[in-house]
Amino acid sequence: MPDNRRITRSHAERRDDKLATRERLVRAGLEAVLEAGWAATGVDKVLRSVGVPKGSFYYYFASKDEFGYALLESYQGFFLKRLERCFGTAADPGAAERPLSRQMADFLAESVDGMRRFEWRRGCLVGALGQELGGLHEGFRQRLETSLQAWEHVLADTIRRAQARGEIRPGLLAERLARGFWAAWEGAVLRARLARSPEPLARAVEDFTHLIHS
Amino acid sequence: MPDNRRITRSHAERRDDKLATRERLVRAGLEAVLEAGWAATGVDKVLRSVGVPKGSFYYYFASKDEFGYALLESYQGFFLKRLERCFGTAADPGAAERPLSRQMADFLAESVDGMRRFEWRRGCLVGALGQELGGLHEGFRQRLETSLQAWEHVLADTIRRAQARGEIRPGLLAERLARGFWAAWEGAVLRARLARSPEPLARAVEDFTHLIHS
Repeated sequence: MPDNRRITRSHAERRDDKLATRERLVRAGLEAVLEAGWAATGVDKVLRSVGVPKGSFYYYFASKDEFGYALLESYQGFFLKRLERCFGTAADPGAAERPLSRQMADFLAESVDGMRRFEWRRGCLVGALGQELGGLHEGFRQRLETSLQAWEHVLADTIRRAQARGEIRPGLLAERLARGFWAAWEGAVLRARLARSPEPLARAVEDFTHLIHS
Repeated sequence: MPDNRRITRSHAERRDDKLATRERLVRAGLEAVLEAGWAATGVDKVLRSVGVPKGSFYYYFASKDEFGYALLESYQGFFLKRLERCFGTAADPGAAERPLSRQMADFLAESVDGMRRFEWRRGCLVGALGQELGGLHEGFRQRLETSLQAWEHVLADTIRRAQARGEIRPGLLAERLARGFWAAWEGAVLRARLARSPEPLARAVEDFTHLIHS
């Protein structure tokens, strides 16, 4: 009788190894693209930084585009978690029902920390890929739009809860406010990186706060 | 007696030819970088599109960075002219003293026309280079900051004129408003390109208008 259990475990181990290496490639890719952009990020350099043999890229990803989609998916997961921590969710009413001004202050603080940690060299993956690939590459364009729409949904829900608590002047549409905030935020991240300063981020939150309260 | 005049004219002609070709390279480079980004723009392809022999790039530019600086200088000239047309200058009081809402509407209309003309494939050079090179390349970072600061000066002057005409609610700092607008605008251009829609641009102007009037 062949030792099936052993073969099975060995398969699982290989699968786990593959996933772990894939995950390390995604992390290294995120760092590279956030700092230097998509076109400037060589797959070989990413492989080397993780100690994966040159030429084995296609064992992990079907194409460089698929690698980019994996980066975007990973970044989106990271960013949505940040939004959940700051804005709460329906399942986490403690965080969700704090005042919007507190929630935005938390989001600002996490974002400033995140950019300062890497000395303002890293911005936003959606902004970076959007600038480089948003014009000509339909696969990225659609995925980037989808990512931004998900941020909009989260923030619009947050704004609606604040509206229900009477924190926002009447007559404003939550979706419209959320969309405007993220556009302004993307520009502020770009500027913060150029200016190496948290000021543009703080100003974007201030302007938003003024817009909804005045 | 050597025909000095002929030699001189021939020098001048060669210089004019060189400048004309350089100008065509800058135009072709702008188109390429606005659509596909900096790292994806191959110098060879730009040369080919203008019919300049491969290998003669360094006759026109000392390096690819110098080429990039020339693109930025040309774009900045183009953009400051747009701002002058829309916002006026101290030397053009007719345009400068129109209501700020009219001036912003003109700026929005020109910008939407400009992006629609190229089917939303082209955004803003400062945004594009800022995303790709703003993190790691000090020469670009400083030049991009300088470009943005020039836009801020023009808009802040425009806002101060509107303040003097009593169009803006009291207590706002013109520089602060101008800086906030351009950050929001860069994000809106990114989003307009992704969404292939003028809506983000219109919303950025609307939010700004609300902020200064409410």
